[in-house]
Amino acid sequence: MAAVLRGSRNLLGRSLKHVDFTLVSSRSMASKTQVGFIGLGNMGKPMAKNLLKHGYPVIATDVFPESCKELQELGAQIVDNPAEVADQADRIVTMLPSSPNVIEVYTGPNGILKKVKKGSLLIDSSTIDPAVSKEMAVATEKMGAVFMDAPVSGGVGAASSGKLTFMVGGVEEEYTAAQELLTCMGANVVYCGAVGTGQAAKICNNMLLAIGMIGTSETMNLGIRLGLDPKLLAKILNMSSGRCWSSDTYNPVPGVMEGVPSGNGYQGGFGTQLMAKDLGLAQTTATNTKTPVPLGSLAHQIYRMMCARGYAGKDFSSVFQFLREDEEEGQ
Amino acid sequence: MAAVLRGSRNLLGRSLKHVDFTLVSSRSMASKTQVGFIGLGNMGKPMAKNLLKHGYPVIATDVFPESCKELQELGAQIVDNPAEVADQADRIVTMLPSSPNVIEVYTGPNGILKKVKKGSLLIDSSTIDPAVSKEMAVATEKMGAVFMDAPVSGGVGAASSGKLTFMVGGVEEEYTAAQELLTCMGANVVYCGAVGTGQAAKICNNMLLAIGMIGTSETMNLGIRLGLDPKLLAKILNMSSGRCWSSDTYNPVPGVMEGVPSGNGYQGGFGTQLMAKDLGLAQTTATNTKTPVPLGSLAHQIYRMMCARGYAGKDFSSVFQFLREDEEEGQ
Amino acid sequence: MAAVLRGSRNLLGRSLKHVDFTLVSSRSMASKTQVGFIGLGNMGKPMAKNLLKHGYPVIATDVFPESCKELQELGAQIVDNPAEVADQADRIVTMLPSSPNVIEVYTGPNGILKKVKKGSLLIDSSTIDPAVSKEMAVATEKMGAVFMDAPVSGGVGAASSGKLTFMVGGVEEEYTAAQELLTCMGANVVYCGAVGTGQAAKICNNMLLAIGMIGTSETMNLGIRLGLDPKLLAKILNMSSGRCWSSDTYNPVPGVMEGVPSGNGYQGGFGTQLMAKDLGLAQTTATNTKTPVPLGSLAHQIYRMMCARGYAGKDFSSVFQFLREDEEEGQ
Amino acid sequence: MAAVLRGSRNLLGRSLKHVDFTLVSSRSMASKTQVGFIGLGNMGKPMAKNLLKHGYPVIATDVFPESCKELQELGAQIVDNPAEVADQADRIVTMLPSSPNVIEVYTGPNGILKKVKKGSLLIDSSTIDPAVSKEMAVATEKMGAVFMDAPVSGGVGAASSGKLTFMVGGVEEEYTAAQELLTCMGANVVYCGAVGTGQAAKICNNMLLAIGMIGTSETMNLGIRLGLDPKLLAKILNMSSGRCWSSDTYNPVPGVMEGVPSGNGYQGGFGTQLMAKDLGLAQTTATNTKTPVPLGSLAHQIYRMMCARGYAGKDFSSVFQFLREDEEEGQ
Repeated sequence: MAAVLRGSRNLLGRSLKHVDFTLVSSRSMASKTQVGFIGLGNMGKPMAKNLLKHGYPVIATDVFPESCKELQELGAQIVDNPAEVADQADRIVTMLPSSPNVIEVYTGPNGILKKVKKGSLLIDSSTIDPAVSKEMAVATEKMGAVFMDAPVSGGVGAASSGKLTFMVGGVEEEYTAAQELLTCMGANVVYCGAVGTGQAAKICNNMLLAIGMIGTSETMNLGIRLGLDPKLLAKILNMSSGRCWSSDTYNPVPGVMEGVPSGNGYQGGFGTQLMAKDLGLAQTTATNTKTPVPLGSLAHQIYRMMCARGYAGKDFSSVFQFLREDEEEGQ
Repeated sequence: MAAVLRGSRNLLGRSLKHVDFTLVSSRSMASKTQVGFIGLGNMGKPMAKNLLKHGYPVIATDVFPESCKELQELGAQIVDNPAEVADQADRIVTMLPSSPNVIEVYTGPNGILKKVKKGSLLIDSSTIDPAVSKEMAVATEKMGAVFMDAPVSGGVGAASSGKLTFMVGGVEEEYTAAQELLTCMGANVVYCGAVGTGQAAKICNNMLLAIGMIGTSETMNLGIRLGLDPKLLAKILNMSSGRCWSSDTYNPVPGVMEGVPSGNGYQGGFGTQLMAKDLGLAQTTATNTKTPVPLGSLAHQIYRMMCARGYAGKDFSSVFQFLREDEEEGQ
Repeated sequence: MAAVLRGSRNLLGRSLKHVDFTLVSSRSMASKTQVGFIGLGNMGKPMAKNLLKHGYPVIATDVFPESCKELQELGAQIVDNPAEVADQADRIVTMLPSSPNVIEVYTGPNGILKKVKKGSLLIDSSTIDPAVSKEMAVATEKMGAVFMDAPVSGGVGAASSGKLTFMVGGVEEEYTAAQELLTCMGANVVYCGAVGTGQAAKICNNMLLAIGMIGTSETMNLGIRLGLDPKLLAKILNMSSGRCWSSDTYNPVPGVMEGVPSGNGYQGGFGTQLMAKDLGLAQTTATNTKTPVPLGSLAHQIYRMMCARGYAGKDFSSVFQFLREDEEEGQ
Repeated sequence: MAAVLRGSRNLLGRSLKHVDFTLVSSRSMASKTQVGFIGLGNMGKPMAKNLLKHGYPVIATDVFPESCKELQELGAQIVDNPAEVADQADRIVTMLPSSPNVIEVYTGPNGILKKVKKGSLLIDSSTIDPAVSKEMAVATEKMGAVFMDAPVSGGVGAASSGKLTFMVGGVEEEYTAAQELLTCMGANVVYCGAVGTGQAAKICNNMLLAIGMIGTSETMNLGIRLGLDPKLLAKILNMSSGRCWSSDTYNPVPGVMEGVPSGNGYQGGFGTQLMAKDLGLAQTTATNTKTPVPLGSLAHQIYRMMCARGYAGKDFSSVFQFLREDEEEGQ
């Protein structure tokens, strides 16, 4: 299992062509039969509720029993562990915090793969190392089932309102079956390619997002110190080549835009700690593929420093506040 | 004069309120009278031609006499030095390569200020340190004239077609007079605030642009190595929070977009060397104002390394090529 | 130590206290009985030869049979795979390129642990992720044997002359037994603490080394451009607070010192590619322990860029050449 | 040297060969005649006192009259401004906070050059941009006098005990005359080359020092988190290639060494704010000479961020504390 965490090529390069698609197709016909859901945290719970809303019977589990209560009251069946979910459902969605949890839930002693049925479709919406996604796919394939990675963008709000974006990696033949479930929970479902490419797309987007956010914060801070009005500067950037999502949609400077965390003490939004986690994944994949990512790497370090200095729980746009000179303390 | 290069607050903080706007207003009525133009390089020449096209008599000079020929054939009057321009025109546009040239042209032995008329309007479209703009404004004010900084975005093409964007700093009362001339040479004219804020806006935009371009290049490179199709990755980024001008309008990966330098061997466009110069200005202003700009600073260093490795003349989007592992050389 | 284990606590957090030290002590008495050696590459072969020189019978294997020839001629017994080595020797040294190789050699189908004897001492001198060392220690302990990590500093020359430095992690009671073998191959053997700390010490040293080397190169380059004689600048730094191993022992500027790679076209020494690998390990451990390492991270990226631009095989001090402006190409 | 001058060649490129050394030599014979001293701050005052101790009559001034009291009581003559100092003394030492102050003191309305005598020797011990030193040298030469830059390393303690190190730039013929005075105030006097190279040496040393200090802090922090004892790790680094002044003489980790600021809450020593200033000079010279200094640049930004977060007055080794995860705040 240790190998799971490393980029060993011989393991990961294996194709998925031996899956028996005859078996698979029988399952994907079975609309409105039970769907398994594992991981009922801040994101998972509203996602599972959206499956219920769309009429799918849900059978669920979570390592913390109290997380299951609300779903149980809404009619979901709660079981003890992932293996029991796999014993009853042939379509399962997993939503877990990090790679080790995914490994445990799939390959652990009470893991999905202990009881997975042939032809089952396993969709992992966790954000993890794409190399782990590939290993899970290989292990799943050995049991005659299918694995897809489908990480999301959009936070708890989008999960509740069913407006998530899913980036999906896996065999193309299975994409339609996955899409049927994912559209109950998200507004956009994008097919990215082979297993792991969903994770790759998510990691890439968030790395560029972090770079843009820190870059926007530095730039706005510099402009303000040079005498520019922040709203005017944002306007100029947004009509010019400096434009980016962080400048035109989620500006980090208090007072420039409404309805964004910078206007609310950097509460809510996407936490610095979560961004640091995603940038750590980007670093790991970049190191494993020997890709130079100098700005991505520095962005990671800046979010690490912020976590060390009390910003872990604030929205990631609080980097503007972190970089700004404290008028009282500074020189 | 040495002080020009330093951020000495007492000099730069002075307001411009003592200018006699009665004198000024008499000049700004005088449309279609002679306009001076100093600096007939790649950018200045097409700009001056656009003034001629709009019916303004032009009196011009350049340190290289051969640069003046074409303009002379088109009807402009050519004189020996900036002082002679100032002797005849009360509206002058300057377009020069860097701070020391601006200092020389304004305050040197044959500089504009030696013969500038009271109430004249001096517009500097060079991209320079805003602290220098402020010192030129102070020196100009002492002579009873008005100085505005109005750097441009857009390259030689935009200069020729009159589609430049001007970012203008200076006293607001003079903005209309400046706008009259600038609209002959540009499609957008934006008023940014006090003297120096035009430069500040330009520098800020280009710093964020450089960060976005390197970030996009790193991200696209990482995604490709993780198995994503570059066009698909660009599409995903552009519908998500990773979106920026470099990803959606000027993508650095060959084959993703048409009509951009990446599709043409990184010919044309905005040279790495020019970007390195602008990032150097950003660093200087950030250092002078004690503003932390970690990504801007690293972006500067990366473009410096590129200049040292043969990329000086290529478009700045060639950072994608610089970061990419050379298949033959790499490990 | 807890910090190291985040992300996979259940695996790595187990203590090593259940090893039966009675069995172990019987083995460590048995001097001059057969020693196993696995991995006969550039480093491993001279290390194994030094064991032979010191009178130890050696039983060895390598995945490339041709690597074994020379050792066989010198009297070593060659077997087919790690399991066969473990079947005959109760002290084994492994010297392998990277984490996946170590995992395979220990836990693979023909791995050491398939046939390891109770009480055996397994010493891994590979440079790998300390988390992998800990996993190997746990797996080894389950078989009733002992694992120590003992990575080396010093290159092929030090390996040949028996002048390596070993940094050793593992249970302290076993250190004397390990020392007996390691002193045949190295001049310094340093006990660092629990399993994984040998790797940690190696990784930390090399990260600081890389930072010092790039820093020295930048500094020497800047000083030269500012008009300083390089030898004089090196002398000033070395008597001041800028002093470091890269400035006083391994100066990267050609002509400053003799007998170092910079005097020889950056041939020999410690390759850029190997440094990039070690910095990758440093990044991975830093990410896993949530430690901010901004300069270490940028150093990693710079060595990655160098690998991408043809410097993979040059000594790591060639970063001076990489950063220096090419007189012909530069602006 | 030419590289230094880019950007303002006409000003800085002039040689110093026209100074009349006959005049100069008559002055340098005149031992124990009055020495001027301008700038009686934390550093300047003890330096001037050491000149008094060595029997030199001192004539001094400072912009803050209260700074002059102690020196006056010790027998120094206090005058109103630099011009008056120059009117009476033909050897003058200046010790000022930054470039604009130096420009003012030399070329301002009551500056030294208003009354400097032919053949005078002006020694500037301020730490400033070497380009400004060169401009002052040119301006001084025009008045028939000689300018040398002689910045110091060592803090207030070394200034008091006369143990400073001077790095001296200027015409070699004048070095002996300068040395006579400087050895009264310092233990080491190093001749570095042409005017500006004293500054260059100081800047280079401090840039490498900052890189080494941050690198040591990152490395020690990482090692501690990986389970290494900090004293043991320092010992290992110091016997290995990671060794540097910050690891073996000024270790930033509390408890590793005695008698350094890390053992005393980072009180005293060399302030973060001063280091940030020197790194700003390094950035400016690097930008002006188009030298890539990626780690130096990032070191600058890190010290800037620290100034913005309340570390301005702490010793620069407090970067260890800045980078370390706050146990209570961190994730």
